[in-house]
Amino acid sequence: MAAQVKLYDTTLRDGTQGEGISLSVDDKLKIAEKLDQMGVHYIEGGWPGSNPKDMNFFERAKDLSLQQAVITAFGSTRRPDFKAENDPNLQRILDSGVKAAAIFGKTWDFHVTEALQTTLEENVNMIYDSVYFLKENGIEVIFDAEHFFDGYKHNARYAIETIKAAEEAGADCVALCDTNGGSLPGEIASIVKEVKKHVTIEVGIHCHNDGELGVANTLEAVNAGAVHIQGTINGYGERCGNANLISVIPNLQLKMGIQCVTDNQLKQLTEASKYIHELANQIPPNSQPFTGKSAFAHKGGMHVSAVLKHPETYEHIEPEQIGNERRVLVSELAGQSNLLFKAEELGLSLDKKDPAVKETIEKMKAMEHKGYQYEAAEASFELLIRNGMGEDHDYFQLDHFKIITHKEKDGDFTTEAVVKVNIQGQSVMTAAEGNGPVNALDHALRKTIGEYYPLIQEMYLSDYKVRVLDEAEATASKVRVLIESSDGKDTWSTIGVSGNIIEASWHALVDSIRYYFMKQQHQLKRAEPIASIPNAGVKNH
Amino acid sequence: MAAQVKLYDTTLRDGTQGEGISLSVDDKLKIAEKLDQMGVHYIEGGWPGSNPKDMNFFERAKDLSLQQAVITAFGSTRRPDFKAENDPNLQRILDSGVKAAAIFGKTWDFHVTEALQTTLEENVNMIYDSVYFLKENGIEVIFDAEHFFDGYKHNARYAIETIKAAEEAGADCVALCDTNGGSLPGEIASIVKEVKKHVTIEVGIHCHNDGELGVANTLEAVNAGAVHIQGTINGYGERCGNANLISVIPNLQLKMGIQCVTDNQLKQLTEASKYIHELANQIPPNSQPFTGKSAFAHKGGMHVSAVLKHPETYEHIEPEQIGNERRVLVSELAGQSNLLFKAEELGLSLDKKDPAVKETIEKMKAMEHKGYQYEAAEASFELLIRNGMGEDHDYFQLDHFKIITHKEKDGDFTTEAVVKVNIQGQSVMTAAEGNGPVNALDHALRKTIGEYYPLIQEMYLSDYKVRVLDEAEATASKVRVLIESSDGKDTWSTIGVSGNIIEASWHALVDSIRYYFMKQQHQLKRAEPIASIPNAGVKNH
Repeated sequence: MAAQVKLYDTTLRDGTQGEGISLSVDDKLKIAEKLDQMGVHYIEGGWPGSNPKDMNFFERAKDLSLQQAVITAFGSTRRPDFKAENDPNLQRILDSGVKAAAIFGKTWDFHVTEALQTTLEENVNMIYDSVYFLKENGIEVIFDAEHFFDGYKHNARYAIETIKAAEEAGADCVALCDTNGGSLPGEIASIVKEVKKHVTIEVGIHCHNDGELGVANTLEAVNAGAVHIQGTINGYGERCGNANLISVIPNLQLKMGIQCVTDNQLKQLTEASKYIHELANQIPPNSQPFTGKSAFAHKGGMHVSAVLKHPETYEHIEPEQIGNERRVLVSELAGQSNLLFKAEELGLSLDKKDPAVKETIEKMKAMEHKGYQYEAAEASFELLIRNGMGEDHDYFQLDHFKIITHKEKDGDFTTEAVVKVNIQGQSVMTAAEGNGPVNALDHALRKTIGEYYPLIQEMYLSDYKVRVLDEAEATASKVRVLIESSDGKDTWSTIGVSGNIIEASWHALVDSIRYYFMKQQHQLKRAEPIASIPNAGVKNH
Repeated sequence: MAAQVKLYDTTLRDGTQGEGISLSVDDKLKIAEKLDQMGVHYIEGGWPGSNPKDMNFFERAKDLSLQQAVITAFGSTRRPDFKAENDPNLQRILDSGVKAAAIFGKTWDFHVTEALQTTLEENVNMIYDSVYFLKENGIEVIFDAEHFFDGYKHNARYAIETIKAAEEAGADCVALCDTNGGSLPGEIASIVKEVKKHVTIEVGIHCHNDGELGVANTLEAVNAGAVHIQGTINGYGERCGNANLISVIPNLQLKMGIQCVTDNQLKQLTEASKYIHELANQIPPNSQPFTGKSAFAHKGGMHVSAVLKHPETYEHIEPEQIGNERRVLVSELAGQSNLLFKAEELGLSLDKKDPAVKETIEKMKAMEHKGYQYEAAEASFELLIRNGMGEDHDYFQLDHFKIITHKEKDGDFTTEAVVKVNIQGQSVMTAAEGNGPVNALDHALRKTIGEYYPLIQEMYLSDYKVRVLDEAEATASKVRVLIESSDGKDTWSTIGVSGNIIEASWHALVDSIRYYFMKQQHQLKRAEPIASIPNAGVKNH
């Protein structure tokens, strides 16, 4: 089924105006490929007239093999009293080699006279000439009507005149911009309806999220007849961001019945959202609608039993439709049903009446009180349950460790860790260097343990996160360390909390190894070869 | 002017269902006081029938002296085939001593028969009896109509029957709940309008944000006649959260002309939002609408020059109305106008043509390439500019430092730092212990420097944040450390980036001290007494 609306993504241009968002050209190329796979129709790559980095992107984007998406350049109408063919900004669009361009122009009379300092007629001419020039050069043109909604509220006649000029010059689409993000859904709907009476070309919508209404305003515009939808992935963008396509797409497709992408592409939504968060170096908000980690997570005990019976009770769509999944959280609010559900997931059959179940809940609460949060560290949680059930996964015991960080006069920086552990009755001591104290500790620990359990070579740390819990205490505050580990197939997360970042990291590291050994033993039934026990006494490496 | 709608805050109950949100009773009491100051009318404190911690809150909340807000308890209708007076859940509401309660009941026929496993009539009786019982005991009652919108779509007649039962039993308000957060604004508006035809008591609205429409749905309900508004501060809540009152309030008051709070209370909105983020231990999202740090931040060079002339161009409201402020960001996208604006803010008069200005931009870009972000570290940025202008603020030079972290067999954990610096031509060496490596380094450095610059006693570190930049590299990844310092009056932020967390912290620490000394020298014109120079050679402490 063909898409009924066109998705115009401006993550690479408007998105990078967001505070803390910075993308290299390599990042931008990777994101462009992902957007194409997602089913986006236009990818606004940048503003070639303003930024040499953007021109480099357009150069390299020519080598991408995209399925459907059209790489688009951003720019503005010509300057007052210039000829379009002499305008350097329009010329850069031609130089970029794109097949489509979005150019913005003024539609609010006040801005024409105040900011541009030109006449209302000249502004209309600027729009007409610029669109005409690009069309003459074979480029598909989207006219971005800047400040359209504010302009329309102040002088509707003039605002309409500007977009009609774009239409007459041959523009393929006029995108109405709520540039400062302040409009309300009702205003957007009624103004889009009015515009539809005056122009016959495609009408588009470009919203910002300053009123926390970016998605709603976009949906209202589509209800009112807009068929070209601008936005960014995860809502990145200046100030409070742009309309979030990650929420717009499933609302349109699953709730309003308006086809945007294929069902298979929709199933990639969660993965795409996370991938782009990663490239933009943003922590994905847990509570992000649709694709967040918490979007289908159930915490309250009563909710959990209900949702297992009837998912629609607390889930507005099926998480699978957008590639997300249901989760049941473990926390101090957890009723017994959460814990039992969790245990069942882990393949443990717990007896409700077992006092060990109650004890485990108590232990968990005590740990949470210290700052542990098992929601994000399911491997540590599983160890806690299994310990509670009497299982023992102490493959090694710490004797002591020491970490020395040294900064020399010449700026050289070294970190060494010395670790002594007891393994199978033997004391083993070793030292290793690292890039920072935790890295050195990790290296030394792996070296020590590897002698007895070569299995450790199969696993590695894949992610490391630090969260300061009581920031007001500054450098003496408590930190929570989350470590994600992987063996190339599976990943698992462990946690440590302490006033000392090294100690917190140690706990998470140790849990990570214990968990992996436990899992492998279960599968391999202790088939994993273990090095023969060397002579008694300390072994030095 | 009296409020035209009533604000019902459920941060303390529904908010704590959010993943990662956990509040102590002390936190809840502090938040309750803040909500009252903000002008909230009802504070839902918890569910006394489900949680002993909540009962403790109600006990202690009696000692709060609130201006206006009514502490409210949450609960459910009686169980099937019980008498209301024998229902333990309703009894707990009485025990909690509140003047108002919200009780939820089923309105979706399918849930009555499937989840409650009772008849449709018994459910209506349960609603009637429970409301009647609480009213008879002198309690103001809000009936939370659970799953109302979904229920109405499936069986409108029955859904209306349930809320009419609440009305007949004396309920003061019926709050319509979009429990799974999946409704669209148009659906909310038309269903609220229908409900208004059937009941005469106050109609309320309770939305969730699963479709990123929580705020829009709430505003549409108000447009359709709802006058009681439920939500949470910062939108905390299960899954994707509840309707965010921090966005609902200014939209209603500043855009729709519906009075919620006083103008002075509105000016506290930003501070209240941040305060509650802090108590809930949440990192405030920069892009949070209205109150976020980036909500009125301008990054693109062109925007900056426009916004300084005509703020309404890129600002939907005046930031002062809600206690936020305009910021101009420094970044690789920065045009010259940003840098000059920033310099002017700092009281530096830069000459556009000065080659030092260009060099500073280049230097800044190189540092940003390494992972520095000056947006959040304006003190480090000021040092960078001033250095670029030829100023020298090297009050001390590092010779070397060493940090030793030791974990003993018995679990004891110690960290010591040894620092040697050169100050005014002298070498000074000292050692100190700390709670973690950075804390030890901070202590040792302050001890060393304090000998020569007693001024350092006036400042302290007030916040410490760590961000892993390339998390995929795990413990060998680059980290960015942000330190906030304070002298009790002013605060300033500095940054360090390195593969080693200790080195990154060192850079941020040193910048923090250099900045403070520079500021004090400017104000005090070198009047600060500096200890006399001791004999040459290393001084040991």
